Amino acid sequence: GALGGLGLGLWRRQQQAAMAASKEDEAEKKEEEELRQRFMAPPVSGMRELRRRRRELRSRMELLIMETQGEVCRALAALDPGASFVVDTWERKEGGGGISCVLQDGEVFEKAGVNVSVVSGLLSEEAARQMRSRGKSLKAKDGKLPFCAMGVSSVIHPKNPHVPTMHFNYRYFEIEEADGTKQWWFGGGTDLTPTYLNEEDAVHFHKTLKEACDKHDLKLYPKYKKWCDDYFYIKHRGERRGIGGIFFDDMDSPSKEEVFQFVKSCAKAVVPCYIPIVKRHCHDSFTPEEKLWQQLRRGRYVEFNLVYDRGTKFGLLTPGSRTESILMSLPLTARWEYMHTPPESSKEAEILEVLRNPKDWVH
Amino acid sequence: GALGGLGLGLWRRQQQAAMAASKEDEAEKKEEEELRQRFMAPPVSGMRELRRRRRELRSRMELLIMETQGEVCRALAALDPGASFVVDTWERKEGGGGISCVLQDGEVFEKAGVNVSVVSGLLSEEAARQMRSRGKSLKAKDGKLPFCAMGVSSVIHPKNPHVPTMHFNYRYFEIEEADGTKQWWFGGGTDLTPTYLNEEDAVHFHKTLKEACDKHDLKLYPKYKKWCDDYFYIKHRGERRGIGGIFFDDMDSPSKEEVFQFVKSCAKAVVPCYIPIVKRHCHDSFTPEEKLWQQLRRGRYVEFNLVYDRGTKFGLLTPGSRTESILMSLPLTARWEYMHTPPESSKEAEILEVLRNPKDWVH
Repeated sequence: GALGGLGLGLWRRQQQAAMAASKEDEAEKKEEEELRQRFMAPPVSGMRELRRRRRELRSRMELLIMETQGEVCRALAALDPGASFVVDTWERKEGGGGISCVLQDGEVFEKAGVNVSVVSGLLSEEAARQMRSRGKSLKAKDGKLPFCAMGVSSVIHPKNPHVPTMHFNYRYFEIEEADGTKQWWFGGGTDLTPTYLNEEDAVHFHKTLKEACDKHDLKLYPKYKKWCDDYFYIKHRGERRGIGGIFFDDMDSPSKEEVFQFVKSCAKAVVPCYIPIVKRHCHDSFTPEEKLWQQLRRGRYVEFNLVYDRGTKFGLLTPGSRTESILMSLPLTARWEYMHTPPESSKEAEILEVLRNPKDWVH
Repeated sequence: GALGGLGLGLWRRQQQAAMAASKEDEAEKKEEEELRQRFMAPPVSGMRELRRRRRELRSRMELLIMETQGEVCRALAALDPGASFVVDTWERKEGGGGISCVLQDGEVFEKAGVNVSVVSGLLSEEAARQMRSRGKSLKAKDGKLPFCAMGVSSVIHPKNPHVPTMHFNYRYFEIEEADGTKQWWFGGGTDLTPTYLNEEDAVHFHKTLKEACDKHDLKLYPKYKKWCDDYFYIKHRGERRGIGGIFFDDMDSPSKEEVFQFVKSCAKAVVPCYIPIVKRHCHDSFTPEEKLWQQLRRGRYVEFNLVYDRGTKFGLLTPGSRTESILMSLPLTARWEYMHTPPESSKEAEILEVLRNPKDWVH
C-alpha cells in the first residue's frame, strides 16, 4: 500500500522528469541542428560545451561570431554562384582553434576570407600587457595569466575596381588575474577601402554603421569613426587605407552585457552595409587603367597590413598562430610602381584627396 | 740688385706655384670629368667638397657608392637596351639627399632600383642606439648626436622566372659623441632570391662573394654567409627569403682602412656575381605556371621587407626619409594565395626545401 503508493509516485515523478528532459533534449537538438545549418563548421568549443555554459558571455560571443561567419559567407556566396568557400578547421596546439572560410578567384570576388578563432591558454605578463592598446598592467600568478581570446575577422577583395574592399573584425578577450578577478574587453570595427570614390556608397556604408551604433549610445559613432580614421593611417604615405567606418578597442563599459549587445548590432550590420554596394557595382564595366589603379591601391593595403596592423603583427609574433589565416587578409595580387602619381582632377586623385583628408559622411 | 733679385725670385716661385696649381687643377678637372661620366648624377656632397676632404673616409666611401651605382646601372642597362634608368636626385630637408635610379617594366627587368643616399644631421640617443644592431650606448651632448650615414642599396627584380632577384646594400655610419670621439661602422651584404633553384648559379654567386671576402680574411665568408641566412629569415613562414649570400653589420675592426677595403671588394663583386646569371637565363623559355610561382615568391619578398627588414623599418620611421626610395625594393607585382603548397618533388618544392634548410654552396 503505502510503500507501493510511494513507489508508484516516485516512478511517476521519475517518468515525468525523464519526459521533460527528453522534450528539453529534443528542443535543444532541434536548436542545435538549426544553428549547425547556419554555421560553416562545428564551433571550436563544441555545441555540448557551449550549451553547458550557455549563460556565460564567452559562449554567447562564440555563437555570435559563428553566426556572423555563416551570414557573411552565405551572402557572398549568393553573389558569386560559380565559386564556393573552402572551409578549413584547425586546432592550436596550445589550446583552441579556428575555422577559416576562403573563396578565391571567383567571378565577383578575387579573394574573400572570413575567419573565426577561439584560443585560450597562458600569457606572459608582457604579452598580456601588449594585448591591450592602453597597456594596463595585470597581476599574474607565477608570471602566467590564463586567457581566452576569440573573434571573427574578414577581408573581402572583389575583382571589379568599382566594388570596394571591405574588412571587419569583432573580438573578445578575457584574462584572469592572480586573485581570480577577470579582466575582459571587446574590440572591433568595419571599414571600407574603395579604389574609386562613390559618395552614395560611402554615405550608405557609414549611415548603416551609425544606425547600429546609435541604438546604443549617440556618442559611439563619432568616437569610433574618428578612431577608425586614426587607426588605418599609413604614416609613410600620409594616407588612410580607405574611407574608414568604425574601429574600437579595449571597450569594457558600461557593462559586459551592454558592450556585447553593441558588438552584436555591429556584427549584424556587416551584411546590410556592404552587400548592397557589391550588388550595385559588380557588373560595372571597367578599363585596364582602372584595374591597374586597383592593383596599386592593393599594394597600399599590403603596406598597411604588414607594417602597421596590430592584429597582423601580434598574430605573426604569437607562437602557434596560424599564418595562413592571418595573411588571408592580403589581396590575391598587388602592384608597386616607383613614383606613381595620378594626374590632377582625375578620378584617381579624387580618392587620394579623401584618403589624405578624411570626410564626415553622415551628419 | 738684391731686392730686384729677391723680387724676381719671389715672382718666379709664385709663377711656378701657380703653374703647378693650374696643372693640379687641370688634372683634377680631368679626373672629375671622368668620375662624372661614371656616376649617374653629381654626388650629394658635391665634387668640390669631396676633393677638399679627399683623405677622409666618408669622402672615399661616397665616391665608392657613387661608382658602384654607376657600374651596376650601366651593366643592367646594357642587358635591357629598350629600357632606361630614370634618375631622380632628391634632397633631405634635415641635411643630405640621394640619387635614385629606377628602371621599370623593361624587357629583361620588371623593376630594378639602385639608390644612393648620403644623409647627416642630429640623432636622439635612442635613435642612435637603435641604429647599431648591437645597441651600444653613446654619450650625447644635450641629448643630440651629430651623425652621417651613407649607402648604396639595390634590388633587381627580373621578368623571367629563371632569373633570380638580387639585392645588395653597402653602408657607412659615423656618430660623434659628446667628447668629440667618433664612432663609425660599416654594414652591407649581397644576396640572391631565385624562384627556381639552379645549383650552378648558386655556386657561382657564393663563390664570387667568397673570393671577395677571402682576399681580406678567410673567416669573413663563413661568418657573413651564416649571418645572411639568419637575417633573411621569414619567421612566420619558417623560410629564408632566398639562398643567401653575405650579410654583416656593425663592422668596426680591424681598422677603418681595412674594413673600407673589404667593403670595396664586396661592392666590386656585385656585377661579376650577378650579371653572368642574368645573361645565362634572360632568354630561357617559361610557362604561365612558372610565372605564377614567381609571383607567389614575390609575395614572400614583400612579407620579409615589410615585416622584418631593419633598413625598411628604420627608413619608414625616420622623419624626412624618402618613402619612394625605400619601397623601391618592392616588386612591380606580387601574389598571395591561401594555402598554396607545391606538389612533392616538384621544382617548386625543391627551392622551398633549400629555403627551409640553407645549404653550403662553396666548400
